[in-house]
Amino acid sequence: MRLAVIPGDGIGPEVVSEALKVLGEVVPNAETTTYDLGASRWHSTGELLPESVLGELAEHDAILLGAVGDPSVPSGILERGLLLRLRFELDHHVNLRPGRLYPGVPSPLADPGEVDMVVVREGTEGPYAGNGGLLRKDTEHEVATEVSLNTAFGIRRVVTDAFRRANERPRKHLTLVHKTNVLEYSGSLWSRIVEEVSLEYPEVSVAYSHVDAATIHLVTDPSRFDVIVTDNLFGDIVTDLVAAVTGGIGLAASGNLDISGRNPSMFEPVHGSAPDIAGQNAADPTATVLSVSLLLDHLGEKEAARRIEASVAFDLATRDQASPGTTTAIGDRLAALVSSNTTPRPAL
Amino acid sequence: MRLAVIPGDGIGPEVVSEALKVLGEVVPNAETTTYDLGASRWHSTGELLPESVLGELAEHDAILLGAVGDPSVPSGILERGLLLRLRFELDHHVNLRPGRLYPGVPSPLADPGEVDMVVVREGTEGPYAGNGGLLRKDTEHEVATEVSLNTAFGIRRVVTDAFRRANERPRKHLTLVHKTNVLEYSGSLWSRIVEEVSLEYPEVSVAYSHVDAATIHLVTDPSRFDVIVTDNLFGDIVTDLVAAVTGGIGLAASGNLDISGRNPSMFEPVHGSAPDIAGQNAADPTATVLSVSLLLDHLGEKEAARRIEASVAFDLATRDQASPGTTTAIGDRLAALVSSNTTPRPAL
Ligand SMILES: CC(C)[C@H](C(=O)O)[C@@H](O)C(=O)O
Ligand SMILES: CC(C)[C@H](C(=O)O)[C@@H](O)C(=O)O
Repeated sequence: MRLAVIPGDGIGPEVVSEALKVLGEVVPNAETTTYDLGASRWHSTGELLPESVLGELAEHDAILLGAVGDPSVPSGILERGLLLRLRFELDHHVNLRPGRLYPGVPSPLADPGEVDMVVVREGTEGPYAGNGGLLRKDTEHEVATEVSLNTAFGIRRVVTDAFRRANERPRKHLTLVHKTNVLEYSGSLWSRIVEEVSLEYPEVSVAYSHVDAATIHLVTDPSRFDVIVTDNLFGDIVTDLVAAVTGGIGLAASGNLDISGRNPSMFEPVHGSAPDIAGQNAADPTATVLSVSLLLDHLGEKEAARRIEASVAFDLATRDQASPGTTTAIGDRLAALVSSNTTPRPAL
Repeated sequence: MRLAVIPGDGIGPEVVSEALKVLGEVVPNAETTTYDLGASRWHSTGELLPESVLGELAEHDAILLGAVGDPSVPSGILERGLLLRLRFELDHHVNLRPGRLYPGVPSPLADPGEVDMVVVREGTEGPYAGNGGLLRKDTEHEVATEVSLNTAFGIRRVVTDAFRRANERPRKHLTLVHKTNVLEYSGSLWSRIVEEVSLEYPEVSVAYSHVDAATIHLVTDPSRFDVIVTDNLFGDIVTDLVAAVTGGIGLAASGNLDISGRNPSMFEPVHGSAPDIAGQNAADPTATVLSVSLLLDHLGEKEAARRIEASVAFDLATRDQASPGTTTAIGDRLAALVSSNTTPRPAL
């Protein structure tokens, strides 16, 4: 297993180091190559993602990324030039974001119920296409456009993936989240494709929710969701809310998948680089550890993936929620749990 | 005071009727003209918003709208052809949505704290411009575009309105909600205008939040927000979440304002037509009553507006939350409270 590792900025290196510690317990012979990308490289060389590095990354089985972003870099530079560029160049069309409220984890909701969903967010088109422009810049008559680009090809592959996942889950339920009553063109395309693909998955029940209504449901009745499929921007918004409801972005994992297998998929915590707590051994590495579990699952190492997730579930159920420990302490605990002969049985 | 009333579909007529009952207590001589627009007119005549009706509506001081939408009408027809057309034709550039958690009202959040914010949502541009199209429709090579149109003119007027409101509030705090790290063009324009207008309001402190992070804050720490200014689509999403957090869309009021005064502003509850409970005297008219309070405030009837809001606050603090009563019972209670000589002092 050849992994490319991009620790990145802020707490990125700290959480990645713990995640690799845990990985080492299940895949001792993983070969890792670390790539120095992010704020400091940009500051010292002006480089964001050199072609040669992109080429090397593409040779790996998967990529593990900590976080990129630093207040010293103007907003958007690293996001668009590095993170989104990786997702687009490597055709990460399925942005997979599980949202599960693990037993023991406090939710900001008074009565969250059981929450166990997966958001399948489109990752390579929509309003993220970078298509737009400015007219009469810096004048009183400036016009700024952003073009959301949506293709039948791009939507079908992510919708198919979402149905496939729904079909494998006990509830077999899929919700399309969009804003079809306003975004008439992209809305009609998304709706058509969901309808067409649904014919191939007769056992999967299909629902639709406008994105605004979905935010209401996510705080009043999150249990209703099983698999959500949605566009790049709605997915960005909805997955942060899902993360908040299920205990915070400190626990939220994600995978940027090229389902075709042509390019390595990339796994990263949903949280950012949190520069305010960087270097203090204070960040919770759990989201990154769970991202490693997604990585292993994606590479077919189902048993190893399951062991890591079960260990995290056990730790979450038993940890002191108010002070779960330092970054390294949590990493040590998780590594010990994963390595222990008997996989712990979490109270699920 | 000449008011145009559009009861609309579903529960629209029921909640509007109660709201007018309450209005009658503070402005006994209001002249109202009712316009039959919505699903049934569309079914019987194919008309959504005839030019002649639009012309008549424009002659009024304000418009009160219940709700439009019915399952018998394909999604989007009434929304785009009637509701959004009204907002755009009447240049309702400030979509004003207060978000206040009234004492006594249950929130889905375990620990909401004090929530009292106002969202100033742009109402006439952004992704709502209806600009987009389809290429190779109904084929495997279909492309759908949606163009978000943003102008310095359009943004400046709504941002200025938001600063003006923030400046009049005790906390004098304004948060721009956008996604500037991804939507580079519209993001830079919004940021520039907020920066420029902020110079005219030195006492207003300014914060920025990405829309995804804003959804997290809204469920973990909603008290941080005072005035939010944001684009049409982000405002749509965020205000439903704000409504959910402050007790539900059954209580959320809104105003679609043409600040220039050239066109009548339009006031409506944030909720929809709720066809499932229509005709059952079961809908809560409170959001529509609060919309009347916004209407009166906008028309300069500050004292009448305040009396209605105080009566609602009192009723919310004292009502049986589990069964607040029928539509007419709530309307009767609110009308009685408003008409009583001594304006009730809500426990604020
Ligand atoms: C950092 C940003 C570009 C990114 C996104 O918008 O996709 C982040 O919010 C995420 O959800 O991974
Ligand atoms: C019905 C729909 C067109 C409308 C919108 O998207 O603005 C509604 O959601 C709202 O918020 O008033």
